[in-house]
Amino acid sequence: KINSERLWNTLHETCEWGAEHRYGEKPTDTGMARLTLNDDDARVRRWFAAEVQKLGCSLSVDQMGNMFARQQGRLNSAAPMIAMGSHLDTQPRGGRYDGILGVMAALEVLRTMKESGFQTNYDVGVVNWTNEEGARFPKSMCSSGVWAGAIPIQQAWDLRDIHDPSVTLRSELERHGYLGDIACSSDPATGYPLGAHFELHIEQGPILPENNKSIGVVRGAQGYRWLTMTVHGKDAHTGTTPFSARQDPLLASSRMIAASHDIAKRHDALASTGIIRVPSNASTNTVSSQVTFTLDIRHPQDSVVHAVQDECLKAFEAIALQDGKGVSFDWTLDTDSPAVKFDDNCVASIQAAADQLVGREKSMLMTSGAGHDTVYTSKHCPSAMIFVPCRDGVSHHPTEYCSPQDCAMGTQALLEAVVHYDQF
Amino acid sequence: KINSERLWNTLHETCEWGAEHRYGEKPTDTGMARLTLNDDDARVRRWFAAEVQKLGCSLSVDQMGNMFARQQGRLNSAAPMIAMGSHLDTQPRGGRYDGILGVMAALEVLRTMKESGFQTNYDVGVVNWTNEEGARFPKSMCSSGVWAGAIPIQQAWDLRDIHDPSVTLRSELERHGYLGDIACSSDPATGYPLGAHFELHIEQGPILPENNKSIGVVRGAQGYRWLTMTVHGKDAHTGTTPFSARQDPLLASSRMIAASHDIAKRHDALASTGIIRVPSNASTNTVSSQVTFTLDIRHPQDSVVHAVQDECLKAFEAIALQDGKGVSFDWTLDTDSPAVKFDDNCVASIQAAADQLVGREKSMLMTSGAGHDTVYTSKHCPSAMIFVPCRDGVSHHPTEYCSPQDCAMGTQALLEAVVHYDQF
Ligand SMILES: NC(=O)NCCC(=O)O
Ligand SMILES: NC(=O)NCCC(=O)O
Repeated sequence: KINSERLWNTLHETCEWGAEHRYGEKPTDTGMARLTLNDDDARVRRWFAAEVQKLGCSLSVDQMGNMFARQQGRLNSAAPMIAMGSHLDTQPRGGRYDGILGVMAALEVLRTMKESGFQTNYDVGVVNWTNEEGARFPKSMCSSGVWAGAIPIQQAWDLRDIHDPSVTLRSELERHGYLGDIACSSDPATGYPLGAHFELHIEQGPILPENNKSIGVVRGAQGYRWLTMTVHGKDAHTGTTPFSARQDPLLASSRMIAASHDIAKRHDALASTGIIRVPSNASTNTVSSQVTFTLDIRHPQDSVVHAVQDECLKAFEAIALQDGKGVSFDWTLDTDSPAVKFDDNCVASIQAAADQLVGREKSMLMTSGAGHDTVYTSKHCPSAMIFVPCRDGVSHHPTEYCSPQDCAMGTQALLEAVVHYDQF
Repeated sequence: KINSERLWNTLHETCEWGAEHRYGEKPTDTGMARLTLNDDDARVRRWFAAEVQKLGCSLSVDQMGNMFARQQGRLNSAAPMIAMGSHLDTQPRGGRYDGILGVMAALEVLRTMKESGFQTNYDVGVVNWTNEEGARFPKSMCSSGVWAGAIPIQQAWDLRDIHDPSVTLRSELERHGYLGDIACSSDPATGYPLGAHFELHIEQGPILPENNKSIGVVRGAQGYRWLTMTVHGKDAHTGTTPFSARQDPLLASSRMIAASHDIAKRHDALASTGIIRVPSNASTNTVSSQVTFTLDIRHPQDSVVHAVQDECLKAFEAIALQDGKGVSFDWTLDTDSPAVKFDDNCVASIQAAADQLVGREKSMLMTSGAGHDTVYTSKHCPSAMIFVPCRDGVSHHPTEYCSPQDCAMGTQALLEAVVHYDQF
């Protein structure tokens, strides 16, 4: 049985490194700004290294700064360890649970095992993945992506701090001493292979609280594609140009955004526009010359993601001709992240743990809406995730909150899933 | 009969002060960047002062730098002069005709009268209005507005250069010696009253070319209201937040922009959005927290402008509730410019000139879509405008173009309208 108080205290004590954005009176009523490889991230990394070594773990750091803490199993097997992984970095206006809970829970699992003298058959351990958020160095799930062979290491090393282009991810790894000597790879010869990967994470959405469930058994992650649309029109005076003579890219973009929502809704998919931009010299009395906007399409089935994209582009072509003299548009595909199905045995281990802890009626099978490091690890080792509810589904926001009970329940489920998988 | 070649050459020769944005091979294939009271504007002002003095005009400069050149009439009357006015300043990416044609045409009218020994009954003259564009010091039709008592002079003087806040309109007037000693006012005791105001201007829209007309007899200017809408939602992850749980201000704004267009169209009015902004930390995978956009509503009748605004706001209220958990919005009124009806006698003088020059079938009565200095003068003296076509209706753009024939025709119409009004 994990120690719920120790978990809670450890999580919030270590959030002193990076606490920001106070929103209430209580000491823990703040968000976080622990951007990857900043000084606070380096502090929590050094603390983490010391803690796992106190537990008797060996610690390895790879060339992306990923930290692998390993506790030996009973069998002294050479098999790769069963990992519990997540990330300690946060968004610039992030919360205290996204990623952090997963690493602190993994540490609590190791502490509980040590305290109670429990030994797994195979080695188990914790991974702290570098730059999951992609907020400072703009590529999310960056170092699990390098580990999985999906992102070339040079490209990841060369990522520049979005506010200070003189700083690269590699230069920050070097500055803090986190450019390890193991290859960042699942290759047993040069890198750090894993036997399995379990990740506890807050849901970051409202499905668990709305369905009054306390554990989500995550069997996969939905597919998503990110497009940037550029709509070309022609600047014109808003007072002197009749509608019939206009090529208005902002009117067309507005109709496109509304249409993409309605199309996605019909498919039970998601389509979202987070960014729209007009030129910096836009003015109230000038029809804009050009508009760009992003489109983020998601669904658990890739075929539906593609169908929504195709239908959107067809609708956009009709919209482009609809008003006045019409507009033209082009688009780029910025991210293509196909749907991922997690490992059946890992999922079964989590389901078994959930059944035992909260019963079938308080857990639910679900698909992750967001990307996580586990999406990448699943390409090279059996993987699955546990979700716990966060208040109102709010995440990437200072007020992000997961109750002590839910943190503890998720951590207990993580422990039991790992033990179950180890026995399996 | 005006000298078409002299007009054309004078216009383009003086456009050497401020020529920018080359788009073709010919010497005149450039736009203009003669922002009000910059060094090039000061050069063209000094040239203008010298030219009118050569013609025997007296020159007065008021406290906003408005330049009044006056040619004495036959009757030696003390009545205020019949003015032909427009502006010599341009947009930062402006053309060679907007405003400039009106002043050069007025000068050509005086030159033609002088050359042919023709004298009007009453004094006639030219006005160069300061900062019509409001591009450098952000208030359009700024100094005719002060003259008309609609803008307090201190507020106009205090306007700051949008790129260099250490510079004010008044400091630039002083630097170039254009802070005159006459009050900027139509008050006969202290200021510079006008007997009438005629303005030749390019249409800046496509109505004349599309109807194959060469002269627009402008009987008024439409009313317009500028609103800034702010739509409030809540940031949320685009991958983990179901549509039903969202408060998406960009989706709502898109529906609002489309709705405002459709509402205006039903009323034969205009509604346009030139600017839309999401917060600078917006991202592809985050539903935005807030969106602002502008709304510019226009119609020749104020009642229709108000009806469109009311219908839009009602539609926006419904849209705000439409998707997910709904959004809220508020708005500010930034500009309220009621419709203006020009003086019947001035309009009749222009119509008579047009009938004589091009016949009734090649001219048309129209309402100005944009604001002009004449909108302000019309509050204190009989006023009206002449429009000539510009290519494809393009204006506020380097490629703005009015043919030598159309420039000449408009100038001849200006001359004859003034003579007609003088006789009336
Ligand atoms: N967890 C998370 O925000 N991942 C980033 C990629 C995504 O948008 O799903
Ligand atoms: N001519 C012109 O662009 N005036 C500015 C005010 C308006 O938008 O009508």
